[in-house]
Amino acid sequence: MNGLEKWLPSITWARQYKAATFGNDAVAAIIVTIMLIPQSLAYAMLAGLPPYIGLYASILPLIAYGIFGTSRTLAVGPVAVISLMTAAAAAKIAAPGSPLYIEAALVLAFLSGLMLVAMAVLRLGFLSNFLSHSVISGFISASGILIAASQLKHILGVKAGGDTLPDILTALAGQVGAINLPTVMIGTAATAFLFWVRKSLKPLLVRAGLGPRMADVIAKAGPVAAVIISTLSVALLDLDAEGVKIVGAIPQGLPPLTIPSFDAELWSSLLGGAALLSLVGFVESISVAQTLAAKRRQRIAPDNELMGLGAANLAAAFTGGFPVTGGFARSVVNFDAGAETPLAGALTALGILLTALLLTPLFHFLPQAVLAATIIVAVLSLVDLAALPRVWRYSRHDFIAMAATMLVVLGIGVEPGIVTGVALSLLLFLWRTSRPHVAIVGLVPETEHFRNVDRHRVWVSDTVLSIRVDESLYFANARALEDRIYAEIAGRPALRHVVLMCPAVNLIDASALESLEAIQHRLHDAGVVFHLSEVKGPVMDALRRSDFLDHLQASGGHVFLSQFEAVRTLDPAVVVGLRADGTRAAVSEPCIGLETKAA
Amino acid sequence: MNGLEKWLPSITWARQYKAATFGNDAVAAIIVTIMLIPQSLAYAMLAGLPPYIGLYASILPLIAYGIFGTSRTLAVGPVAVISLMTAAAAAKIAAPGSPLYIEAALVLAFLSGLMLVAMAVLRLGFLSNFLSHSVISGFISASGILIAASQLKHILGVKAGGDTLPDILTALAGQVGAINLPTVMIGTAATAFLFWVRKSLKPLLVRAGLGPRMADVIAKAGPVAAVIISTLSVALLDLDAEGVKIVGAIPQGLPPLTIPSFDAELWSSLLGGAALLSLVGFVESISVAQTLAAKRRQRIAPDNELMGLGAANLAAAFTGGFPVTGGFARSVVNFDAGAETPLAGALTALGILLTALLLTPLFHFLPQAVLAATIIVAVLSLVDLAALPRVWRYSRHDFIAMAATMLVVLGIGVEPGIVTGVALSLLLFLWRTSRPHVAIVGLVPETEHFRNVDRHRVWVSDTVLSIRVDESLYFANARALEDRIYAEIAGRPALRHVVLMCPAVNLIDASALESLEAIQHRLHDAGVVFHLSEVKGPVMDALRRSDFLDHLQASGGHVFLSQFEAVRTLDPAVVVGLRADGTRAAVSEPCIGLETKAA
Repeated sequence: MNGLEKWLPSITWARQYKAATFGNDAVAAIIVTIMLIPQSLAYAMLAGLPPYIGLYASILPLIAYGIFGTSRTLAVGPVAVISLMTAAAAAKIAAPGSPLYIEAALVLAFLSGLMLVAMAVLRLGFLSNFLSHSVISGFISASGILIAASQLKHILGVKAGGDTLPDILTALAGQVGAINLPTVMIGTAATAFLFWVRKSLKPLLVRAGLGPRMADVIAKAGPVAAVIISTLSVALLDLDAEGVKIVGAIPQGLPPLTIPSFDAELWSSLLGGAALLSLVGFVESISVAQTLAAKRRQRIAPDNELMGLGAANLAAAFTGGFPVTGGFARSVVNFDAGAETPLAGALTALGILLTALLLTPLFHFLPQAVLAATIIVAVLSLVDLAALPRVWRYSRHDFIAMAATMLVVLGIGVEPGIVTGVALSLLLFLWRTSRPHVAIVGLVPETEHFRNVDRHRVWVSDTVLSIRVDESLYFANARALEDRIYAEIAGRPALRHVVLMCPAVNLIDASALESLEAIQHRLHDAGVVFHLSEVKGPVMDALRRSDFLDHLQASGGHVFLSQFEAVRTLDPAVVVGLRADGTRAAVSEPCIGLETKAA
Repeated sequence: MNGLEKWLPSITWARQYKAATFGNDAVAAIIVTIMLIPQSLAYAMLAGLPPYIGLYASILPLIAYGIFGTSRTLAVGPVAVISLMTAAAAAKIAAPGSPLYIEAALVLAFLSGLMLVAMAVLRLGFLSNFLSHSVISGFISASGILIAASQLKHILGVKAGGDTLPDILTALAGQVGAINLPTVMIGTAATAFLFWVRKSLKPLLVRAGLGPRMADVIAKAGPVAAVIISTLSVALLDLDAEGVKIVGAIPQGLPPLTIPSFDAELWSSLLGGAALLSLVGFVESISVAQTLAAKRRQRIAPDNELMGLGAANLAAAFTGGFPVTGGFARSVVNFDAGAETPLAGALTALGILLTALLLTPLFHFLPQAVLAATIIVAVLSLVDLAALPRVWRYSRHDFIAMAATMLVVLGIGVEPGIVTGVALSLLLFLWRTSRPHVAIVGLVPETEHFRNVDRHRVWVSDTVLSIRVDESLYFANARALEDRIYAEIAGRPALRHVVLMCPAVNLIDASALESLEAIQHRLHDAGVVFHLSEVKGPVMDALRRSDFLDHLQASGGHVFLSQFEAVRTLDPAVVVGLRADGTRAAVSEPCIGLETKAA
């Protein structure tokens, strides 16, 4: 891969492009376009922007991603969670829909694009690893609930604000008297219809004799059908005069060329929001891309993904759009529909461009309630509350991070939610590694293996204490190890040797090195020799660069290759089950019920 | 230990108190009092406070610590680094020496006391583990340099400000013309004298025939001698009229009863500073306490230390003082002088009380330059620049954290310095664990041990890939493991089994569990069976709570107790050095020079 192809992966597929591939790409593009038209309008509305901005964000960004990204099938464009985060960030600057608000959305796309490109160039993609699955899952579920709740006002035809779930529900409750009946009828009918289409239409069509592929295409067109039927109903029955809110006039034509404003104050107040939505967008996008790539044994290069998403957001910023990323639902549809290269994305862009040029007058009477129904049905499929009990069973720490993320998203907001989740998962990890699992081990009779004395019947020595630490040793846990070793030697007057078994120690940092020095000194003062065993290569390399090993040797200590070798050298009788005085070696009494478990 | 004694450890030693002990405690108290009088005045000046406040902070806090703390010999009181941090925090509120500034110092002591008590009750002492040795060492060294530089103006007799090293040096350079000659003479003479006392007086006295204990007492009285001689010189020669700055009038009498003001705005602007100085003070104090306790095989309870330091700071807040902690130099002196119980601290408090009641007029002509000399000599002994190359050799990450802490302390300030150090050391740890060491391993011929193929000559199988991961698996590194395994299987068409060897895996969190599921799925799709081996007990317990093991078994995978068992089961020929077709098993070619190292 030469330098150009490293950053322009599209060269690879473009060179080998075949006519047969074009047919597959074109079919996929038509299906995705049909799906994207209502979604792009709806997600712009969710972001607090005029609906047509959703169309603008679905043209050039798709082409930009296709040129720089590595996923063959990722469908880039407006996405629910990113739209919500855009709204959260922009609402700090201005009132939704105002010119300054639209400008803020543009700047968010621009900053997000710059950050993603910078992450690509500086190879900072690893930062996204700090968003754990549990935090992401909790964040997406809670965002889905929040989004669905925020759209209820459109379904009910009332004006109600609120950025948190309690606020939204309170505001809605206060508006019960103001409900607009025609809107409610259209909204609930559209929601019910879309749920039915999603769940039941495809199996029904297959049973009616249609091919599964055709059935799929028709089912995917469900939202478009809802759009057409509801638009016609409103237009013919003059329902907008009855208080049904409609999309209204949409400017017809090419997306405008826009230059995001360079206002230092605006930038600095949007910087945090842009960083968060870049990270979340990247994580969401790359998980979809990798899942789909794995199915066809293709490879995704994280740096190119960052570059592709960065280019897409910059493209959005310069063509009157708002932040975009790779979306789950549309990408899966694109993949299932047979898309083979990013040309499918380019063709989708062409479809949206034609829509923006020619079809926008048709959306005039489209009721906002139907867009809201589209959003609600899409986001509720992202909500995975079953993850809560599943994660609770597996890991309390992951549960805490997930539940806290959800609560803060619902109760305070999306940005504090993701920050809380990341901070909490990091703190919990550090807290856990700061209290390492330390086990006293003994020899499994007639083997060379050592196991926890509390879990196995093993031979132990009175003069040699074998202690295994199951964690890398670093500043956060160095003192805990010291305390544990001092506590263990306190009750063992016959003790002559302590062997610290290090098969799970992947790192000894400078703080832990000082603790080991302190342990060695203190044991020496107490007439006990300190040894190490099973030290890993990289850790041993590091120890050689300090003078710890000299001090260890000076006090009679060794680094043994294996714990068996250590015990055989220091108390040979134990390895055949004998004490030094010829009696049988002590056998540890494991806790009942534990002995069958692994060490 | 009953409930009362849990929080009042002084009951234990008070019950057994003997007359002989009193003699030792009293001697130690006299020596520490002599040392503390000039230090308390000097550190108050360093904190930007009137010198007498140092005396107030050296009375009740010592008694409070003695009641609640567990160290028998810790000498609590004003300390250089904490005084510097007090100045940094209070200077944000008001001009040094102003009534509001003095109030801010009082509130800092109060908040710090509350926080330490809260940490004791909530068992949050582990938080201090996140200050790594490297960060603390860098912080103390840089603070020492900064403090010494900040005192130069008193030695030179000029007015010069500055909170950072460049600012201080620039300000001093601009004042070269304004140097006061008598002040410089007193200041440099005092500094030289104190350095000489510290380095050379005790050996000289011993050689002159004095007992080492007596020589020590006389050497410790050096600063008092400097105080007496310089005060007499100024008083007799009327040097204050020549521009030598003196301490001036000190109110005589008991410390006042003070109530820290409850001003929400003041509190919130001091909260961060109080938190940082509580943590630093606790870390500094507990390291001294543990070092000294270890020498006499006494135990330090971190929760009681928090309570003791909290009580000391609350006592300081209610008696006109400023933040205090356990100091290194005075505690060592107390220990060496033979102190056996905290009664020595109480007697020291009595000494300072008598000083405040009776002796303060004697300090009227004490030159500030001598106090500055006391500070400079004390803090320069804390500076350990040799740690930089030592840590560089051992660990680049520790070096980065240390150097960054020092640079930020010197160039920006103490609070940003400690925050940078902690954040950087945590990020570096996470970054390191996010790129785990993963090794392909093979069987050491004629043993049951597996070692890295790159470091040892080992037998490997064509059909079984043994891969060892040397890190706990969690969200930050789960994806890296996935990538590595996919990359490894790509080039091995004959592969049938992958065994992930987990002796160093101390944790598998929910994110890593999903990655293992993904690996298992993807290998299954590629016709390769995924196995685990040497899974630790606690990790296995967690896996049993998920359905991962069911999925593993359904695809033919096992969890083997040892890697040897795994390979013996999956490719029996390899364990005797044969391939399946009867030819010799492949032997890995380790890199030259690496084979003698540990695995």
